Amino acid sequence: MKNIAIGIDIGGTNTVFSCIDSNGKSYCNGSILTQTQEKFEDYIDDLCDAIELSINKLEDKINVIGVGVGAPSGNYHTGTIENAANLRWDGILNISRLIGERMKVPVKLTNDANAAALGERIFGGAKGMTDYMVITLGTGLGSGIVVNGDLLYGHDGFAGELGHIIMRPGGRVCGCGRRGCLETYVSATGVKRTAYKMLAKEMDDSSLRDIPYNQLTAKMVADAASNGDKLALEIFEYTGKMLGEALANVASITSPKAIFFFGGLAKAGDLLFKPVREAMEKNILFLYKDKIDLLPSKLGDDAAVLGAAALIWNDKK
Amino acid sequence: MKNIAIGIDIGGTNTVFSCIDSNGKSYCNGSILTQTQEKFEDYIDDLCDAIELSINKLEDKINVIGVGVGAPSGNYHTGTIENAANLRWDGILNISRLIGERMKVPVKLTNDANAAALGERIFGGAKGMTDYMVITLGTGLGSGIVVNGDLLYGHDGFAGELGHIIMRPGGRVCGCGRRGCLETYVSATGVKRTAYKMLAKEMDDSSLRDIPYNQLTAKMVADAASNGDKLALEIFEYTGKMLGEALANVASITSPKAIFFFGGLAKAGDLLFKPVREAMEKNILFLYKDKIDLLPSKLGDDAAVLGAAALIWNDKK
Repeated sequence: MKNIAIGIDIGGTNTVFSCIDSNGKSYCNGSILTQTQEKFEDYIDDLCDAIELSINKLEDKINVIGVGVGAPSGNYHTGTIENAANLRWDGILNISRLIGERMKVPVKLTNDANAAALGERIFGGAKGMTDYMVITLGTGLGSGIVVNGDLLYGHDGFAGELGHIIMRPGGRVCGCGRRGCLETYVSATGVKRTAYKMLAKEMDDSSLRDIPYNQLTAKMVADAASNGDKLALEIFEYTGKMLGEALANVASITSPKAIFFFGGLAKAGDLLFKPVREAMEKNILFLYKDKIDLLPSKLGDDAAVLGAAALIWNDKK
Repeated sequence: MKNIAIGIDIGGTNTVFSCIDSNGKSYCNGSILTQTQEKFEDYIDDLCDAIELSINKLEDKINVIGVGVGAPSGNYHTGTIENAANLRWDGILNISRLIGERMKVPVKLTNDANAAALGERIFGGAKGMTDYMVITLGTGLGSGIVVNGDLLYGHDGFAGELGHIIMRPGGRVCGCGRRGCLETYVSATGVKRTAYKMLAKEMDDSSLRDIPYNQLTAKMVADAASNGDKLALEIFEYTGKMLGEALANVASITSPKAIFFFGGLAKAGDLLFKPVREAMEKNILFLYKDKIDLLPSKLGDDAAVLGAAALIWNDKK
């Protein structure tokens, strides 16, 4: 009988799960909508129903050894989701207890970026590494930091919010209520904001001048840059420079061997990472110069559920 | 027979040692000048001679279980001092091997701020804490960061250089060759530089206007501030604000339960820590608000050797 860990990734729209063995192979998977149920308990019931249905359809019998969950504002220490901004359920949600009571196996919880960081070590490019970090570049900027071989959770379970380092005091307003946070510059949304800043500041022709703010995406800016659009190229230069400066400072704190990038914006590739690397090396303390590898995540599109399952497999290795 | 660990603190001028039991009690101590010997091997020989002489004078017999060393650019992973800026010996100094061969006990090495951080947990105010940091405020700004109960060394042994976070791109020139590092603002030297900036910028009378740059000390600025000197008070406001901003960013990475302060400048007390606390809370992400204690170190003047000895006692607990 095959041992598997169930990885669950809770997003604002969909909740995805997958049954994953110790080599990262998926035996079954599925998804439900995240926010149709009024009560959180009903949502968990529906999720567990879907998982059990999926497992019962398998020809081979499997043995579930645990459930790992990646969720916004997921706290590893308490096993609860705490005041998640993008979920309809308020307050403290004791997801680990609810799933554990229903499925009778250990449940581990953390946020999606921390899960991705563990996943990178168990199944991806960070095998054997003890000190590295994973940065997720999507609508915002998330981070999972591994030091001394363990995830850096901090005293309260909420460490690793790299997206909320203030890079420019008094700068762009952020969803967290402050100004100048890294993710207001370095994220899909940040690229869009920088596009509008550049369109105002410069006078060059650009295909971006024909797209209203609410329709513009980071992908469009990347496509324009790939086509040689001068302004679009400058937008990525600006974004990469800001991230490079931030990483140079982070190196002074955690001294990672490698930084892995994951998420939609990371697909921009060297358009983004060339200026990141240049700015990081230019601004970094001599102790860390030419030591840090900037790498794409090796997890692919299943990173979220692989990372969640890694919460369980990590304890077995 | 009493078990003791020898703690050695290597400073630019003096090397101090102390024989410390598991409760932090010192049985014997002494010091030698650090840089009189041309060869590093001779310096180590003289240091071990002094330690043995000191131990042999004791009436009660003691059992040395190990030697802990705090030294500039001390690398825990390799046990070597690497290119220390303020020592006369260049290159890689294999201090752990040299002392180990001579004294026939395990030797552990790290930099002085990391040693102070361990000392705070074994003998000071961080007992039972798993996530905290120690900041040493002297000529420069050093830091030792503890996460998940262990010192944060980074992949290369050089993590925790908080003093070299760039706070103001293009700002004050730093000994590291870059500009705008935190320690160019927040340190005894930083206070002095801020004093001259303020004396230029403002026109208020101040006792500081009669002191040449090369004679001015942070202590003089603190004394003036305590006497109500308006400019001196503004200097500490400025210094504290800068440190508070930096700590708010660091919280987003490591989420510490407490931050301990140690060193000459830390003696300025609330003159410095009131603005630090205000600026930190004003700039911090909501997740960490009102969670972090700013505390004076409880180690007192023996912090350096207690911290070094803690490298050994930490492994026994």
